[in-house]
Amino acid sequence: MKDRITPTYLTIGQPIPRVDAIEKVTGQATYGDDLSFSNMLHGKALRSPYAHAKIVNIDVTKAQRLPGVKAIVTGKDIPVLGGEALKDYPFVATDRVRYIGEPLVAVAAIDEETAEEALDLITVQYEQLPALFDPLKAMEPNTPLIHERLHTYEHIPVIKPVEHTNICHHVQFIRGDVDQGFDESDLVFEDTFTTQMAQHGALELHMAVAQVDPGGRITVWVTNDAPHRLRNDLATALRIPLTKIRVVSPPYMGGGFGGKGGLKVETLCIALALKTDNRPVKMVLTREEVFTSSLVRHPSIVQLKTGVKKDGRLWARQAKVIYDTGAYAEKGPTVCQQGCVAAAGPYNITHVKVDGYCVYTNKPIAGAYRGYGFPQVAWAHESQMDIIAHKLGIDPVTLRLQNVVEEEDTSPTGKQVLHSVGLKECIKRAAQSIEWDMKSGKKHRGKGIACAFKNTKTPSGSSAIVKVSQDGSVEVLTSTVEIGQGAKTIISQMVAEELDVPLESITVATPDTDLTPYDASTTSSRTTFHMGNAVKKAAKDAREQLFGMASEMLGVETEDLRGEKGKIYSQDNPKLRLSLAEVIKNQYGAGLDIIGRGSYYPLVEGETGGMWSAPSIFWMYGADCVEVEVDLETGQVKILRAIGAHDVGKVINPVTCEGQIEGGIVHGMGPTLFEEMVVGERGDVLNPSFADYKMPTALDIPEVTSLIVEATHREGPWGAKGIGEMTIVPIAPAIANGIYDAVGVRIKDLPITPDKILSALKRKQLDK
Amino acid sequence: MKDRITPTYLTIGQPIPRVDAIEKVTGQATYGDDLSFSNMLHGKALRSPYAHAKIVNIDVTKAQRLPGVKAIVTGKDIPVLGGEALKDYPFVATDRVRYIGEPLVAVAAIDEETAEEALDLITVQYEQLPALFDPLKAMEPNTPLIHERLHTYEHIPVIKPVEHTNICHHVQFIRGDVDQGFDESDLVFEDTFTTQMAQHGALELHMAVAQVDPGGRITVWVTNDAPHRLRNDLATALRIPLTKIRVVSPPYMGGGFGGKGGLKVETLCIALALKTDNRPVKMVLTREEVFTSSLVRHPSIVQLKTGVKKDGRLWARQAKVIYDTGAYAEKGPTVCQQGCVAAAGPYNITHVKVDGYCVYTNKPIAGAYRGYGFPQVAWAHESQMDIIAHKLGIDPVTLRLQNVVEEEDTSPTGKQVLHSVGLKECIKRAAQSIEWDMKSGKKHRGKGIACAFKNTKTPSGSSAIVKVSQDGSVEVLTSTVEIGQGAKTIISQMVAEELDVPLESITVATPDTDLTPYDASTTSSRTTFHMGNAVKKAAKDAREQLFGMASEMLGVETEDLRGEKGKIYSQDNPKLRLSLAEVIKNQYGAGLDIIGRGSYYPLVEGETGGMWSAPSIFWMYGADCVEVEVDLETGQVKILRAIGAHDVGKVINPVTCEGQIEGGIVHGMGPTLFEEMVVGERGDVLNPSFADYKMPTALDIPEVTSLIVEATHREGPWGAKGIGEMTIVPIAPAIANGIYDAVGVRIKDLPITPDKILSALKRKQLDK
Repeated sequence: MKDRITPTYLTIGQPIPRVDAIEKVTGQATYGDDLSFSNMLHGKALRSPYAHAKIVNIDVTKAQRLPGVKAIVTGKDIPVLGGEALKDYPFVATDRVRYIGEPLVAVAAIDEETAEEALDLITVQYEQLPALFDPLKAMEPNTPLIHERLHTYEHIPVIKPVEHTNICHHVQFIRGDVDQGFDESDLVFEDTFTTQMAQHGALELHMAVAQVDPGGRITVWVTNDAPHRLRNDLATALRIPLTKIRVVSPPYMGGGFGGKGGLKVETLCIALALKTDNRPVKMVLTREEVFTSSLVRHPSIVQLKTGVKKDGRLWARQAKVIYDTGAYAEKGPTVCQQGCVAAAGPYNITHVKVDGYCVYTNKPIAGAYRGYGFPQVAWAHESQMDIIAHKLGIDPVTLRLQNVVEEEDTSPTGKQVLHSVGLKECIKRAAQSIEWDMKSGKKHRGKGIACAFKNTKTPSGSSAIVKVSQDGSVEVLTSTVEIGQGAKTIISQMVAEELDVPLESITVATPDTDLTPYDASTTSSRTTFHMGNAVKKAAKDAREQLFGMASEMLGVETEDLRGEKGKIYSQDNPKLRLSLAEVIKNQYGAGLDIIGRGSYYPLVEGETGGMWSAPSIFWMYGADCVEVEVDLETGQVKILRAIGAHDVGKVINPVTCEGQIEGGIVHGMGPTLFEEMVVGERGDVLNPSFADYKMPTALDIPEVTSLIVEATHREGPWGAKGIGEMTIVPIAPAIANGIYDAVGVRIKDLPITPDKILSALKRKQLDK
Repeated sequence: MKDRITPTYLTIGQPIPRVDAIEKVTGQATYGDDLSFSNMLHGKALRSPYAHAKIVNIDVTKAQRLPGVKAIVTGKDIPVLGGEALKDYPFVATDRVRYIGEPLVAVAAIDEETAEEALDLITVQYEQLPALFDPLKAMEPNTPLIHERLHTYEHIPVIKPVEHTNICHHVQFIRGDVDQGFDESDLVFEDTFTTQMAQHGALELHMAVAQVDPGGRITVWVTNDAPHRLRNDLATALRIPLTKIRVVSPPYMGGGFGGKGGLKVETLCIALALKTDNRPVKMVLTREEVFTSSLVRHPSIVQLKTGVKKDGRLWARQAKVIYDTGAYAEKGPTVCQQGCVAAAGPYNITHVKVDGYCVYTNKPIAGAYRGYGFPQVAWAHESQMDIIAHKLGIDPVTLRLQNVVEEEDTSPTGKQVLHSVGLKECIKRAAQSIEWDMKSGKKHRGKGIACAFKNTKTPSGSSAIVKVSQDGSVEVLTSTVEIGQGAKTIISQMVAEELDVPLESITVATPDTDLTPYDASTTSSRTTFHMGNAVKKAAKDAREQLFGMASEMLGVETEDLRGEKGKIYSQDNPKLRLSLAEVIKNQYGAGLDIIGRGSYYPLVEGETGGMWSAPSIFWMYGADCVEVEVDLETGQVKILRAIGAHDVGKVINPVTCEGQIEGGIVHGMGPTLFEEMVVGERGDVLNPSFADYKMPTALDIPEVTSLIVEATHREGPWGAKGIGEMTIVPIAPAIANGIYDAVGVRIKDLPITPDKILSALKRKQLDK
């Protein structure tokens, strides 16, 4: 079921099919693993079998003698530390391993089989160390330290490691006075919610090819969601100038959801390439390695204490949020930072205090995952909102409408006056669509609602170049990664709209840091807004040059000129009309391009703390409603209907927006009901495969209704904001709330597996 | 021996080693043939064994059944005509073949062997037609026509095909009145000179990989000297928009000298790729194919009639110049056009009439070759100059100095007031260096001089983008091809100079029409001048943005700021100093590039006829002197010394300039003394290999002195002009004149082989 906005533009708001549709459906789109270079070697990594151990000795002599082995690297070969927020991550483990799966030797050989064989010939002598798997235990005083030199690590200013502990970041947000707030409250609710370790589940595996030229310049072709950020990270870690690194994206990437950021396969591949006489080295992680040794979603513990007035006003909230970041910080500190911003929820609460902790354990590394810390806290505040509603006897929809932020309210940290806030409409439209006021007709069926918000990292910059060729063909240079989200389509539409050229005349280039201008990342739902603005400016810049030339040719003032499908004409006399090709040919008969450029780097008023401080140039809002049915015998939950209503500012393409809403809901169903990376007592992941780690399949997917709300943003391109991450945030609590409505049991620990339902039902029976 | 100009700049004028030196000398530079793609097919072409024939039938059924054969194309599959100046060139021959080696079937198979085997299984029924090998015969009335539909071919305006003849271009330049001029002359000289068919001899073979995506978009990786021009040519021929074609250069190319332009391997490869289900197809020409079926230097006949005053003043010149362009026009018409501009030589002559003819024959296709038509006419006018000098009893150096153009003289066609004319100094310095006034001490030794000039195609455009990354690293985007000439070095120097950054912080990208902005071509010695200007403007644009930011930070007016090695400082207080990284970080803490852009599209006053009309934005000048020794018994010529003095406007890098002078002299020695593509009576090339076609080797190379003259050009970047082509132009007549000085025989037909010398000596004996 669709609900589309009537378009008022040529391409903006139109349900245009993806520009890469044919390539994708015919299976011709080229992905990273399709890359092959002459003389290429293949890399494999030896990974730690212990969760925490000293490396006493590594013997590679036998492996070195194996014919076909071209390079073997250990941490000693590349003793550098990387990491975006906090530099704690060795390219290859040096003296110590901190989780099962950590790479400590990498081998490059003429083929994968030889590399594997070489790994078997390597012997390592370990000295096991006590391992920590529970973040609460890891936070205790006098616990063994996973990173003894935490206090020496470089980090960005906003990150506050707690020296000589396992806490790599502690954040605190305070607004008002929570103690006073609780005193003034009529009721106080205290609940603890937890989320599990989860995998992104991108279909494409992580890969890289690295090559070092004789001058020492490194080129990496890699499935990374932020080519320029990766280049920065590598340059900083290796202490070489940016000019010595080139990062190239494959033409397509098969999904990321946060998992394709950071330094994983990249570092090993580069370490090998530095030792292979300028031969390219390719590494592709196995699915097992993606599970154990790339990134996971942070397991979390969220303790919420909320004070409310009898009439339903949220009055005070204290939150303690613990993100279990595994063996290395990765993006954990900023995930924690951002998640804690959201711990109060999208509500006006007078008194708020949030303490967030990002904690090391000897488990797989947690990092960015669609929603960036928000799903964990939304799981808590939206579940508790339901508890509060039922306790107060106020309808959950009403309670939310009573408390949610509106235009000109302030941001959760009180630092920003909010603009473009469509949350109320999202709630209303989602509720209306699921016929909230009508009880589910059948037994053991129930309806649930949850709402949420999501920020975007601020400030962050994007640049674009728009090149108009002699026949009016247009090439767009950006470093936005087409990771499956439809960025090429959206960018094409924006350029088509601004330049008034047909969509078919536009080509969007693939990122290459040597060629495409800076973009912070293809993350944080920032592409439509940030790159959209950059692309719009670049197209406008090209347009102005073309209009200037046309104005001279036609003798018409530029303000009286209009564009249409690659033509420029006089508004007053439309017969005075030139094609872009004619305009360029007149000026540059022998050939030249028109080059437009645009950069966008938004600052938010009240912004003081630099990137990752709280204010956000835009906020996304959304509400999900579901209808569920619970099987009392098996404990299984069936989602009958799901509605997602999301405020995107202004829809650029309803098809891709609906794709995001449907995708976000289905993606979010996984860790709500099925998905959990089970960690054994040794710290090993017990189910590192799609056979054992259950993601939703077509059979699990309900009818999804996508509702687009448009609270136009004054700075957004055509008013647009982002959408990608937001769509996953509210689904888990919506389902939990639906289950409560259906069978009266409240599950506070994800995932909501049948056994948890059954035991809750049993307890409920006993309690009666 | 070197003669360097004292540098007044940081990098400009400095003998900086090539920035790609290490990659090249370690053998790690990647060339086209190193490219390999997964799923790639290999293409081969079946070529005509007849010089002129109708194709009656092609039977590919057996070949189609051969396992591993994936596509077979004939002209029927792609009935299009390409060509830069005149569209007469079928991508694959259709109803007729016009030279031995013309492709009429192309096969793509899983490997080269299978493709070759398939070719053997194809049977073709031909009906032979009368073939023409002599251009004079081809120009006669009532001769069979090689292109019966010449009058229907599309062509650029400046080209004048003579309908229903074999003349695909006739050009005429008239200045004054030659008949009157001859009447007023004291002596009139009439001589005919000829040049032979020659091969460029680039070490790298021509290659292409073509792939068509499911949306029909074509990508070609190709050894072509003008990616954007190729894109234009392909789009026009295939009648598709530019956005449907992407041309990518390999990182390095192994020489071109004009031979890597046009549509040769490209067309076959694309024809195959269009039929191979989106699989990439690679084709690499064999050396034999490069000889017979790519491009050659135009054989020519130059008839010169020159009237002089007794005092040595050149007074009238009539020239008839015939360029034998082989089976297809290719760049022949513009080679003819440009060569005829130069037929009067770099001299002030009151009365000039030039008739140029570009004529079809059934021989390999002639096209661009270093010098673009100028070497042929210089061979004539400089040889005749020597004849005139001896006849008048005036020293050849004196005679030249008396007649050559100077600043503010007019161009050969009288349309342009010349600027930056260093020819007199070139002549003087070359003569001085060879001790012109001292007779060669030994018997059978002699000295020769010749001078010449060379224009550049005008107008033509270049664009560049200069991207300054956050740490001050710089990426330069241009479509200039690094074909071996050192373009990356020159461009890096210019950016370093203009931006005041160290050379090491600069990366120059490889051309890719999707990404790098328009450049007309890496030909016509235009890169230093045209791309230099574009790059300088782009760097200046970036610099101005950076200085603006620094001005605000330092509180110093921009005009009081100076740059130095990646720093900006106050002129008055040099302690007020910021690195580029600091400047960018202050403005864009979270990261952004600075993007500078620059375009250059020069027009010449008096210019009316569009591209390829006569005026040139700059003219290069040069003079060569040689000392030779002739072996009277064998007829062999030994070059003892060679001096090249060339006016480059302003030297950017003396090392690369000297490389061009040395290279041009040695390259030019080949067709002067050894090289000749011998065409048999059937029209077949009899020596299509480096074993049989003799190019100069290290043993043949004399001591070369490179002298750089700097007649600064007011529009050139730092005053620079070009150099590449000019250096080959005067060497052949200089050698011939030296031989005359040594042994008193005059050879008018290239190459000057020992047998020609011996028979001339014999005739001289008989004449005594």
